[in-house]
Amino acid sequence: MTDKIQKSFAPDPIDSFSPANSKAIIEYLNTKRALVETALQQYMPELTEHIEFHIESMAYSLSAGGKRVRPVLCIAAAEALGQDMTNLMPIPCALECIHTYSLIHDDLPAMDNDELRRGKPTNHMVYGEAAAILAGDSLLTFAFELLSHPSLTGIIAPQNQVRIINTIAQAAGPMGMAGGQALDIASENKDIPFKTLQFIHSRKTGALITASVQCGALLGNASKARFDALSDYGRHIGLAFQIVDDLLNVEGTMEELGKAVGSDADRNKATYPAFFGVSETRNKAKETVQSAIDALSEFDMKADPLRNLAAYIYARTN
Amino acid sequence: MTDKIQKSFAPDPIDSFSPANSKAIIEYLNTKRALVETALQQYMPELTEHIEFHIESMAYSLSAGGKRVRPVLCIAAAEALGQDMTNLMPIPCALECIHTYSLIHDDLPAMDNDELRRGKPTNHMVYGEAAAILAGDSLLTFAFELLSHPSLTGIIAPQNQVRIINTIAQAAGPMGMAGGQALDIASENKDIPFKTLQFIHSRKTGALITASVQCGALLGNASKARFDALSDYGRHIGLAFQIVDDLLNVEGTMEELGKAVGSDADRNKATYPAFFGVSETRNKAKETVQSAIDALSEFDMKADPLRNLAAYIYARTN
Repeated sequence: MTDKIQKSFAPDPIDSFSPANSKAIIEYLNTKRALVETALQQYMPELTEHIEFHIESMAYSLSAGGKRVRPVLCIAAAEALGQDMTNLMPIPCALECIHTYSLIHDDLPAMDNDELRRGKPTNHMVYGEAAAILAGDSLLTFAFELLSHPSLTGIIAPQNQVRIINTIAQAAGPMGMAGGQALDIASENKDIPFKTLQFIHSRKTGALITASVQCGALLGNASKARFDALSDYGRHIGLAFQIVDDLLNVEGTMEELGKAVGSDADRNKATYPAFFGVSETRNKAKETVQSAIDALSEFDMKADPLRNLAAYIYARTN
Repeated sequence: MTDKIQKSFAPDPIDSFSPANSKAIIEYLNTKRALVETALQQYMPELTEHIEFHIESMAYSLSAGGKRVRPVLCIAAAEALGQDMTNLMPIPCALECIHTYSLIHDDLPAMDNDELRRGKPTNHMVYGEAAAILAGDSLLTFAFELLSHPSLTGIIAPQNQVRIINTIAQAAGPMGMAGGQALDIASENKDIPFKTLQFIHSRKTGALITASVQCGALLGNASKARFDALSDYGRHIGLAFQIVDDLLNVEGTMEELGKAVGSDADRNKATYPAFFGVSETRNKAKETVQSAIDALSEFDMKADPLRNLAAYIYARTN
């Protein structure tokens, strides 16, 4: 079957996000999420004498739910290229460890000072501030242990593995997520221009989401053209994710979000709705998701989960 | 020249730590430290618009001095195997980034709450707590960017590079430095048995020092026997370093240490002197340094800097 014929099976996820498509992607998400969670349990460090409490504090946040969007994007991108992920799970697990570390540190009293995350007490509320900082530090470091995991030897070409590590480190570090968070915190209660907000969004949330897709592309040994197309998809979906996050923060209910609604406004944080209003922001989210789907035009139906994930991100309510 | 003949040139650094040897190692340290500092400046992320303050906060702690013991140990171990380090500097620089991140987080109000480090205000005193947490996060992440740096492609065998990354991640993560720090914090004001103190020492300080030597061994393509010997050296020197740290905390002057003397006792932290007294602790430090030197018995004079570094660690006053 050629790419073109296969493509005709792909739904148009935005204008026809039908209950059937919606059901398919939710099933896909649930299946992959379960795989990720099983692998996380498998690869987590053992409850070693003396530091049981430390391993527990890492596991507490890692097992606190969440949609596992980053590992699922990595898996879906690799599978869009026909890659079997069975023996490659340390890579998507690492992405979730980095995301979880960032949530623990973002919630700290010195940062966003949040007491609830996904409806549960935040890490520092349970284990104290010092232990929470260290749980985050360990999750971040452990991610690189997973990315260089001995079980991957002989399965990934080592030069590909080094490139995956570099991609993720760049996305999470000073020029990526951590730098974006630093600017976000520094911009509170300040009038910032739109380009500063764009910078924050692209780094704080976008960078790791894009890197997740790129890691999947590298695991799938993508050609240069396919790597670039998947990177484009990743950038659009990363932006869409943050725009929808901004919208949910204005529109959502506390029950759906598991945290206080309007907390960005309370903290005087710049958001898309603050610049463009809710209706125009929703249009921008839709356009961005469409651009993500358009980036996959050369991919066959194996990329449908990626297309549906884009639509899911647009339609999500939490 | 055979190993045996070359060995005869090696000083016995403990019993004859003569002014001449002392001068040689201080010159060696100064030379390598200057190399590390030049490389750190070269590889640091640029002062990018929007996040200048964040890059600055990383650079503030990274350039705050220190002996650069970990990168120098890595260089000395590689050079003991005849490896030229000229194009491999991202690896030792990464070790210093990880060490610096750990100091920034250790100093935080929620941890040791230190206002001075090496005689200068700690990171959070200058940039605030949120920015300091993020400076640490970025330095840790940036270390893995350096370890996977594109400039190393074709210079290190990629499977060796992955192994270096895994060695460092293990040493810095939950089963290493971060776990040791978590246990150290959790043990304050508690009567802990000696084996708990050993666990803390071997993880909190020892693990990254051992890993630094092991990375040098891997960069030098060490045989299994030489890798094991250097690992032994690293474990002994890591322990010696912490024992001497404990001693200095009791004996040193504030001027020499750049921080408050006796602060461990103030915080009711378990230390070697608290278990064994000062004199017996000094004996243990000497024995441990001798074991480190003994581990190098099969190495020629190219390992003299490692031997002298062991003696230097024993004799250091800050």
